[in-house]
Formats: sequence, C-alpha cells, structure tokens
Amino acid sequence: MRPSGRAADEMRAITIETGFTKHAEGSCLISFGETRVLCTASVEEKVPPFLRGKGSGWVTGEYSMLPRATHTRGSREAAKGKQSGRTQEIQRLIGRSLRAVTDLQKLGERQIVLDCDVLQADGGTRTASISGAWVALRLAVDKLMASGAIKDDPLTAKIAAISCGIYQGNPVLDLDYDEDSSADADANFVLIEGGQIAEVQATAEGATYDEEGLLRLLRLARIGCNNIFAAQERATR
Amino acid sequence: MRPSGRAADEMRAITIETGFTKHAEGSCLISFGETRVLCTASVEEKVPPFLRGKGSGWVTGEYSMLPRATHTRGSREAAKGKQSGRTQEIQRLIGRSLRAVTDLQKLGERQIVLDCDVLQADGGTRTASISGAWVALRLAVDKLMASGAIKDDPLTAKIAAISCGIYQGNPVLDLDYDEDSSADADANFVLIEGGQIAEVQATAEGATYDEEGLLRLLRLARIGCNNIFAAQERATR
Amino acid sequence: MRPSGRAADEMRAITIETGFTKHAEGSCLISFGETRVLCTASVEEKVPPFLRGKGSGWVTGEYSMLPRATHTRGSREAAKGKQSGRTQEIQRLIGRSLRAVTDLQKLGERQIVLDCDVLQADGGTRTASISGAWVALRLAVDKLMASGAIKDDPLTAKIAAISCGIYQGNPVLDLDYDEDSSADADANFVLIEGGQIAEVQATAEGATYDEEGLLRLLRLARIGCNNIFAAQERATR
Amino acid sequence: MRPSGRAADEMRAITIETGFTKHAEGSCLISFGETRVLCTASVEEKVPPFLRGKGSGWVTGEYSMLPRATHTRGSREAAKGKQSGRTQEIQRLIGRSLRAVTDLQKLGERQIVLDCDVLQADGGTRTASISGAWVALRLAVDKLMASGAIKDDPLTAKIAAISCGIYQGNPVLDLDYDEDSSADADANFVLIEGGQIAEVQATAEGATYDEEGLLRLLRLARIGCNNIFAAQERATR
Amino acid sequence: MRPSGRAADEMRAITIETGFTKHAEGSCLISFGETRVLCTASVEEKVPPFLRGKGSGWVTGEYSMLPRATHTRGSREAAKGKQSGRTQEIQRLIGRSLRAVTDLQKLGERQIVLDCDVLQADGGTRTASISGAWVALRLAVDKLMASGAIKDDPLTAKIAAISCGIYQGNPVLDLDYDEDSSADADANFVLIEGGQIAEVQATAEGATYDEEGLLRLLRLARIGCNNIFAAQERATR
Amino acid sequence: MRPSGRAADEMRAITIETGFTKHAEGSCLISFGETRVLCTASVEEKVPPFLRGKGSGWVTGEYSMLPRATHTRGSREAAKGKQSGRTQEIQRLIGRSLRAVTDLQKLGERQIVLDCDVLQADGGTRTASISGAWVALRLAVDKLMASGAIKDDPLTAKIAAISCGIYQGNPVLDLDYDEDSSADADANFVLIEGGQIAEVQATAEGATYDEEGLLRLLRLARIGCNNIFAAQERATR
Repeated sequence: MRPSGRAADEMRAITIETGFTKHAEGSCLISFGETRVLCTASVEEKVPPFLRGKGSGWVTGEYSMLPRATHTRGSREAAKGKQSGRTQEIQRLIGRSLRAVTDLQKLGERQIVLDCDVLQADGGTRTASISGAWVALRLAVDKLMASGAIKDDPLTAKIAAISCGIYQGNPVLDLDYDEDSSADADANFVLIEGGQIAEVQATAEGATYDEEGLLRLLRLARIGCNNIFAAQERATR
Repeated sequence: MRPSGRAADEMRAITIETGFTKHAEGSCLISFGETRVLCTASVEEKVPPFLRGKGSGWVTGEYSMLPRATHTRGSREAAKGKQSGRTQEIQRLIGRSLRAVTDLQKLGERQIVLDCDVLQADGGTRTASISGAWVALRLAVDKLMASGAIKDDPLTAKIAAISCGIYQGNPVLDLDYDEDSSADADANFVLIEGGQIAEVQATAEGATYDEEGLLRLLRLARIGCNNIFAAQERATR
Repeated sequence: MRPSGRAADEMRAITIETGFTKHAEGSCLISFGETRVLCTASVEEKVPPFLRGKGSGWVTGEYSMLPRATHTRGSREAAKGKQSGRTQEIQRLIGRSLRAVTDLQKLGERQIVLDCDVLQADGGTRTASISGAWVALRLAVDKLMASGAIKDDPLTAKIAAISCGIYQGNPVLDLDYDEDSSADADANFVLIEGGQIAEVQATAEGATYDEEGLLRLLRLARIGCNNIFAAQERATR
Repeated sequence: MRPSGRAADEMRAITIETGFTKHAEGSCLISFGETRVLCTASVEEKVPPFLRGKGSGWVTGEYSMLPRATHTRGSREAAKGKQSGRTQEIQRLIGRSLRAVTDLQKLGERQIVLDCDVLQADGGTRTASISGAWVALRLAVDKLMASGAIKDDPLTAKIAAISCGIYQGNPVLDLDYDEDSSADADANFVLIEGGQIAEVQATAEGATYDEEGLLRLLRLARIGCNNIFAAQERATR
Repeated sequence: MRPSGRAADEMRAITIETGFTKHAEGSCLISFGETRVLCTASVEEKVPPFLRGKGSGWVTGEYSMLPRATHTRGSREAAKGKQSGRTQEIQRLIGRSLRAVTDLQKLGERQIVLDCDVLQADGGTRTASISGAWVALRLAVDKLMASGAIKDDPLTAKIAAISCGIYQGNPVLDLDYDEDSSADADANFVLIEGGQIAEVQATAEGATYDEEGLLRLLRLARIGCNNIFAAQERATR
Repeated sequence: MRPSGRAADEMRAITIETGFTKHAEGSCLISFGETRVLCTASVEEKVPPFLRGKGSGWVTGEYSMLPRATHTRGSREAAKGKQSGRTQEIQRLIGRSLRAVTDLQKLGERQIVLDCDVLQADGGTRTASISGAWVALRLAVDKLMASGAIKDDPLTAKIAAISCGIYQGNPVLDLDYDEDSSADADANFVLIEGGQIAEVQATAEGATYDEEGLLRLLRLARIGCNNIFAAQERATR
C-alpha cells in the first residue's frame, strides 16, 4: 500500500500551465501532484565558445530549488557561493536530455537555456523539470519558426522523464517525497516518444536489484511517460 | 502621460494570494501589476550566533530573481558563485524593514527567514517583496500563536513599501519597468501603518531634486502604502 | 547632551590633507574628527565593457576598512574571499554620488576609480568617503585638464555627504561612533552645492520617524554639507 | 572493428598493484589498459555531522584527474576554485557504490574516505576508480579487523564497475578514449558479485537505444565485472 | 651609480611614527623613503584551534596593499575574492619572523595579529612591514605588561628586515622600486639584533650569484638592519 | 645520529623514472627516498596575456599533494575552493627556478607548464619537484627540438634543489619528514650546475643561525645537488 493510496502503476495528476511568465520565449508551470516547477526557455543569439562559427546551436539546462520549496528550509546556493553536486548533476541531465531530441544544426547558431526552478518539492523534481522543459522548448522553437528565424523544426520528438522505485518490495511509478525517502531503489528514466530510451539512472543505495527488477521499473516508466506525452501534447497543441 | 496610461498617483493592481506554497509556515504570491514575487516565511528554532542565549528572536530576509524574471535572461547568482551588491542591498532592506515592526523579545529565541523570490519583474520588485513578506510573516506568527508557542503578538503594525519617482518632470507613484529605466529620480519608501516612516532611499543619478520634490514623493508613497495596507488586511483577515 | 559635548547642529572638525599619496592622480586624507579616510582617484584610459565605443566616461567607487580601523579587529575581506553587503552598498553609493556631479560625456572615454580606504573609524565613514572622494576627483580632473586631455570641466558642482540621526530623542548632526551605535534613527544625506539633493538614505531600525523628523534631519544636513563644501573649496583652490 | 582490435566483449588488461603508497590504510594503483588510477582508503575516527552519536559509520569518495592525465592539459580544479559538475557526479557515484556493499553499523562510528586520483586517462576512469576503491577499502577494513577495532566484517560483497557502449552500431565492452569520444551511447554499470545491480547510468546523447539494447549492454557488463572480481580477489587474497 | 644617487651601502631615510591609529593596542606608520606601511598590533584573547588549551600564545601577520599604493592601480583582492600568492607568501613571512623573537609561552593563551597595510609603495614593502610590525608588537606587549596581563617580557630581541640586490653588477642595500624592477638578483634578509639570522630569501631570476655574492648581500643587510634597530629603539624607548 | 641512520652529508636514494605518463610531452616520477613526485611538462602553443606578441615564451609550475600523500589525510584544495599559501609559494618557486635556466626567447612564443603532483610525501617535496620538473622540461624541449619547432636549445644548464637543516644542533643534508618536523632551521637551496645559486630560502622558526651556519648548509646543498645533477644526466642522456 502506497502512502498516497495510489496503485503501483498510477501517476500523480499532471498539469501544465503554459505562458506562466511573460518575458521568456517559452514557459510553463508543470505539476506532478504537489511538485511544481517553473520552466522557462530563453533564446540567446550566441553559442558557447566551443561552438562559435560552426553553424550549430546549443541547448542547455539550469536547475534550482527555492529555499523553502522543501519541508525544512535549505540554504540558498547563491548565498553559499556554490552549487551542490546534486544541482549540477541535475542540470547536466536536463541539458543532455533535451539535446537528445534537438537537431542542433537546424537550430542554427543560437542557444536555448532551459531554467527549471522548483517552487514546491514533493519528489520527482528532476523528472518534472525535464518534462516541463520540453514544453518550454517547444513553445520557444514555435516562436522562432513563426518569426522565420528557423525554417525546419529542430525538435525530433517529445521527451519526458519519470522516477520509479522499489517501495516496500514493490515496483512503483512516480515516487512522491514520502516514498522516495524510504525507497529501496530509485530509478529515473528519460524516454522519447516512440519507445527509445534517452537515459537511465538507476541507483540502489539501501538495496540492490536484478535484471528483472530493472525491466519492471522500465515498464512502469513507459506507462508514466505516455501520460506525460499526452499532457505535453495538450499543452502545446 | 505615463506609458501605462495610469494617473500620477495611481498604483498598479495589487493582488495577494496566500498559501501559495504548502511547506512554508507562511507564504503568498504578491503582484504589483506584472511584478510577481513569491514570499515565504520559515520559522527556525534557532537564532544567529550573536543572539544565542539572550532571549531575543530575529527576523531576516533573502531575495533573488529567477534568471528569466526579466526581459533578457540574467545569469544565476548561484552559478556565478556570489550575490550581487544589488541583491545584498535589497536583502538587508527587507530584514531591516520587517524588524521595524517586530518586537523581537516577544518572538522568543527563534528566527523567521523571509524569502522573496521574484518570478516575474516589471519594476518595484523590492517594494513588492517587503509588502508581501509582511503577509508571510503575519501568517507564520499567527501559526506560532495558534500553537501556543508565542503568547503576545510580536507584530506591532503593518509595514509596506512603494517606489515613487520623477518621470518626465512629474512625480509619479509605483514605477513600472518602462518608467523606472528612464526616470530622473527614484525613491523607495517603507512606511508603517499609522503614518511613521521606517526607511527612505531616494536616489538621483541622472538628475537631482529639492526638499519640495522629496516631500511630494513621500505624499505619493502614503497613497500607495494605504492601498497596500488594505490589501494586506484583506489577505490576512 | 551629546557624549562629545557638541551642540546638536555642530559638526566635528573637518580636515583635508591633499596629496597624501604620490602615485594617484588625485588623493587626500580626509578627517571628520577621529574618522580618517584615504581617498585616491585613479585615471584609467579604458571604460567598462557596457560603455566601450560610446564616447562616454565612467566614475566608480571602491571602499574598504583596514582590519583595525575599528574598536575590535574585523577580519579582512580579502581573506574571507568576499566583500560584505555593507561594503558593496557603500561602494555603490560612492560611485552614484560622484556620477551625479560628473558630465560623463565631457570626461571622455576614460574611467576614474575612487578608492576610499578607512584608516580609522569613528562613525560617518561613508559620508567622509564621499566628501573626500570629490576632492580626489577634482584634483585628478584638474590634472587631466592641465595636460589638455580634457577641454571642458566635467565636474558640474561640489558634492558632500553627512549623517544625521535622532539621539535620545533629539535630531543631531554628524554622528560619531558612540552616538551611532545607540541612535534611534540614522540618515545619510548626499547634497549638491546649491541646494539640490542627490541621495537620501534614512533608516529607523529601533524607532521610526515622521515627515517633520525627516525634514529636521535634512536641515541639519544642509548645515553640515555647507561646512564640508567650504573645506573642499579650501583644499582644492 | 574496434580501434584497439579487441573483440566486442573483450576487456582491456586489468592490473591492480596494492600498497602503492605507504601512508594510506589501504591503497592500490589500478589499470584498465592505459587508464591508471591511484585509489587510497583513509580511516578517520570521526563521522559527518549528520551521523554523530548514531553508532553508524560512513564511506565516501573523492575523485580528481591530474591536469595532464589527458591528451591536452586541463586546468587544475584547485586553481579554478571549484570542482566541475562532472567531478562531483563521479564522487557521489563512488561513495554511493561503495556504501552499497558496506554495513555501516558494523563499520562503527568512523569514516573511510576513498580518494581516486587519475594519473593517466584513456576512458573508463570512473569505473576503474570504483573497482580500485573496493580494493583499497578491503585492505583498510582488513587492517581494522586485524587490529581488533572492528569485529564483524562490514563488507558484504565485492563491487565493480565497467562502461559499455554502442560503437558504430555494435555493443562493446570497456570503452577506451577513442571509442568513448565517438560512441553513440555510453553506459556505466556498477555490479555486485553474485549478480545484483547497484547502479546503471546509461546515456544516449547522439543516439538513443531500446530495451533490448540496454539488456545487451548489461550482459556485456556482467562479463567485464566478472573479470574485475577475479582481479580484485587476486589482489586482496 | 644608483638612480637615487645613494651609495651602495646607504639606506633610505627611516621614519617611524608610533600611535598612528588609536584603536590598535600598538601601531606605527613606518617609512623607508617613499614606502609607507601602516602596522597595527591587535591583541585577541583567543588562540587558533590547534593551540587551544595548551597555554601557548600565537603571533600572526596579515599584509595588503591599498589598490593605488603603486604606480598603476591594482585590483582589490577583496573584490577579486582571493589573495594572491605574493600576498600569502609575505603574510607567512611576517608571522614567522615575529614569532622568531617571541616566547609564545610567556605571551600566554592570546593571539597578537600584526596587520601591515601598504599606503604607498616604492620597493621594500615586505621588509618595512616586518620592521614596523615589531614596533607595533613591542607597544602592544608593553601595554599588556603595564596592565599586568603578562609578567615576563615575551619579546626576546629586536627583529628587522631589509632587501639587498645586485644592481648593474653591484651589490646594493635597500632597493627602491626603480632598482627592484631591473635588479639582477634580489634578497630579503630578516635579522635579529645581536647578529643571528632569522630568514634569508635570495632569488635570482634574470641572473644567478655565487657564495661570495650571497655573503656580500648579507653584509650589506647587517648595515641596514643596524640602522633599523636604532630607529626601532628610538620609537619605543 | 639521524633517525634514518644516514650520515650528515648523505642524501636519500634518488630515482628518476622517465615516461611515467604517456600524454605529457615530458614526464618523470622522481623519488627522494620515500618522497615521490610525478612531474609532467605540457607544451602549449600560447603564452600568458602579458607576453602575447613579444616573441618570448614562458615556463610556469603548478604543485599539489594528493590528499593521502601524507601521514594523515589532508583535505583536497579543489574541494576547499582555494589553494593554500604554502601551495602557491611552492608553485611560484618552481616556475622561477626553471625560468632561471631557460632562455625564453629561444623557446619561442609558447608556454611549458610543469605540473608537480606529490604521490607520497616524506619531506623535501618542493625540492624533489624542482629537480624532477627539470627532467620533464628537458624531455619536452628535446621533443620540440626533434620536431624542428625549436632550433637552438633554450635550456642553459641543469638545475636542482635540496633541503638542508640543523637537526639536533648539527647541519644535515636532505631532511626527511621525521627530521623536518623537529629541525631547528630549514633551508632550501636551488643550485645551477656549475656552481651558481638560483635561490636560497633559509628559515629559522624555533632557532636562528649565523653566517657560518648558513655557509655550512650551502656546502651540504652543493653535495646534494651534485648527486641530483648526476641522476638527471642519467635519466635524460
């Protein structure tokens, strides 16, 4: 029995509110239950130094939690003067995931920065971030195409992410904070619409799992991502 | 004629949505027109080192803008590894202002941290922050009183802040971004319900002003703060 | 009765010793009683990136206290690896104040950096810094004009700063450390010769004040700044 | 055909030289072909603050590359003043992996720090680090047991890590630098002797893969880890 | 022929103005010609962690140059967020030198911090710092002895420092900036009254020297330090 | 009697293993007894900003200790976010020493970075670093000459470094950790083949020494450096 009363393969409610902020070229507030992340896409007409003059664009991600997004207040990374290893790990994952569905040549020599700021956390902030970042990216690219700056759509597919885990011996989908803090294993899957896998990060600190366990989690992840793909479709149609 | 079509003594619409996040002891999303700031109050059962064992509490503020709160994306302070002088100046102002209406003895040996995170900026973010922080503080203190942790109300009055400036030669109330970026002078007033002044920060970079000009701005500020006091009252009644 | 025995509207002795260091294009050691600040003006034939190629110059300020300028030794900001919020706030105020009396076009595409280093502190270090920085700036500009690098004088007026406060219920001029640490309210005024106001920063942490109180402090500030203008005139004549 | 001429399921030569440095409680120089990592285990009779007084120990990892471990010199993280996101990600992985085979209660209230310093890099530095860190940890624990400081062996199994990837369309084991820099997908597996999985990190930046692809990589990883387990056994017998 | 017209074994004028600042327990402004350093001694009733509870005191030094102490303005270390290697090297040298003439047991469990801030630089700032720091230390110790906090004098002797170098092939004493920037070799000697050597730092970047050259520099240093000992005696008598 | 049983003028065994890493243009593992330092020379076809376009090259050094090179683990400088004063002092010494035997004009507009990473420490790490860095530099320069990038040999002589000290009243050569931690005086000499002195750093913290003592240490240093020159010759012949 899950603390939330959900079935093992039941996701929390997903909502995506587009246009949440007015300055960004694309933006949405995505919720996985009580987890809420503000995702914005900013188009910059420049690329990182290693890409200058190569005709290719870049997509990158940044991530942060507001100090009181969590049960107890965390100190502000800007005040501490550095980003934690966890933050950097998640930022790298967001950027890598979105690049997996972007044709950087078609994007042209410009950069899109995806900022994912967690307003409220209840487990699954990195997966909500990736899923919402795709919506912000889609909206920003639509704007670039509408203005004629880009001709061919550089986005090759939808991408979404979801966490699964083994909670009290059972594989479950979309862990919330209560489950996450006592799960035996925790896996994040980034899947591409159509069935391909972009990324698997499966960790067992308290316990371990075998091949069959990994596959069960992957199958749950497919269920979850299909839900997210549908929500992304509704939000950007 | 103001870019927004407002009268010289007309504020933007103020909205205060309390309980915007669930973990904080007090929270609100405050809007001054298109400027939106998430304010949370976090109660911590500890005080800074210089107050330990003295029976007095503390109230402090932190401030940040999300990278794409603004027209063009600003780089993240956590990534740069330090907070700008502007951020620190605003943080100090928030804390000082809220302490001006808090009896720290009555608060008891605990700290309340007021986090003000700007989700969208259109001028006046520091004044919206102070005004919203009071609401979050009020809600958190109410909770402490309801639980019996505090007996006597430590909050002595409402406090609010507003910017005024001289725009194209005329004193105007509550500058938005368009006005702020071309104003001749810019003043922030922090006023206490009942008429007292907690803080004046009046700056003339492009121009200068005289005593009469300062008083005119102060009178506009009184109009604005009275509006904010009314909104604070509705939000916390 | 003030601890120093001064009358309410009586400033401490002001002395300005020009040419205190030999390398700077302009320099002075300014004293407000026991507060002593070394102010230097350094001319650099370059401007910050945002001004490059625009034909405009820049004036900026930096501020620091020697570790043992104060009653008890403070740790060195260079050793801590960052400047405090207070330091940054003061630096920004110095630069803004001096720019208020400088025609940046006439200065030409060069920068003048005003370094204010407090050798000994007894209250009023920021106001002594601004007042002394003007002298250093005046001397540096004179040198540029004498050499023919600048034709028209870019300095439009004298500028000076002074603190006032409410001490034991009475408005007093030019607070020293003993008064400052127990004052009910503290205000710094930056005034321009001729009567205009460049900046007001009035803070009430322990108490609050009303409009009449603010005006009284402003009138005291005018008395103080007139004294400083006279000392600046003597020093640079 | 692989650049090195190896078969798809063929690992590079593994060597483990124990006792490479004399001060550490456990140490080895592990080589996966031309990749060489110095792993040391340092026993400290203290635990991180969150574990104090709880009777539990801790195992953590740190990772670094010497500046010229690579083809072109990288700048020193100590000189830059911060560790890269990649470094922090690997450090977290090393610690998590080793904790997966350590009974922290049996370790007692002490910490073992596993330092993995890459002397020469040719792909697979993180997997060699984990595999060598286990040897250093084993030796340090043996010493603690020999001295009577620990009674029951806290290490529950061997653990090893290996990278696999899809190179020119084919799944291959133990990527070297030439393969790694042009692989379509890259996966790191951390496996426990006996068949359990501790961690999977599978990334597809240029391409993507499906469930079958993931399983094929996992099967290659099993072959590789079995080789490493044998080398670990020889080194610590 | 030296640029200054001095003889090879002729020092610049030494002046020592004690009591230059009022808060420090000991202070002086020391000048070696145009080089001027403000030295203060601050007594703190605590010791660094490694000495706590051992009944021994500590003496340490800090060093900084004001930004415009030099011909061209240097950026402020506090603004850059770190101290240069040169600054740290000099700080370590100041502390080590003063500890060479202090009996730390007799000092008791307290720390004396010697701050050396260069107001104007013209070569020899580190040697002036050490020589002036001794005077500040002597004055602070005298105060501790006068108050009864210390019984036996912990200072065992005078200590002074001077630079020598090979300028245009000739050994010369007390290099000023013009000589220093073109000298073939540069040596700093820290000598103790009575003839003992505390420290030698002799560097040849452009050229090299032999044993005889080293001895000649040492003999010049003796002449210079004897002058400084006499000035220290006059200043503290 | 020395703890190691060595005679006063007896060095520890010196070994130099060239080609220890494969990527660097020059590399060696140098051992002075149990002290082992990995030295690499990296050729970069660029120079620091202050040398650009001047036709001159540059040689610089970096130094680090692995965390467990020492008896007890030291924290990693990259994790602390800054290099210690000791590290910076040693880095500056390495660079200065190697430049003393390099004709930077002949090197051409390129930079050689000498990285000295201490794998195991037992006293004398800085002197082993300098001595080994010369071998790495020699090998890198040989490669540049073999490829025709440089015509005339820019290295003018061998350079080596050794520590000497006064241990229990007697001057001894090449202090190991046991001696170093209790020596009365400690001196590092950097000597050039043929008899010239590049650098002397002689420090007396616990005690002091006189001219005769300094000369005795210098004579011991000559014996030690002659041994190192011979080892360098064998390694690079």
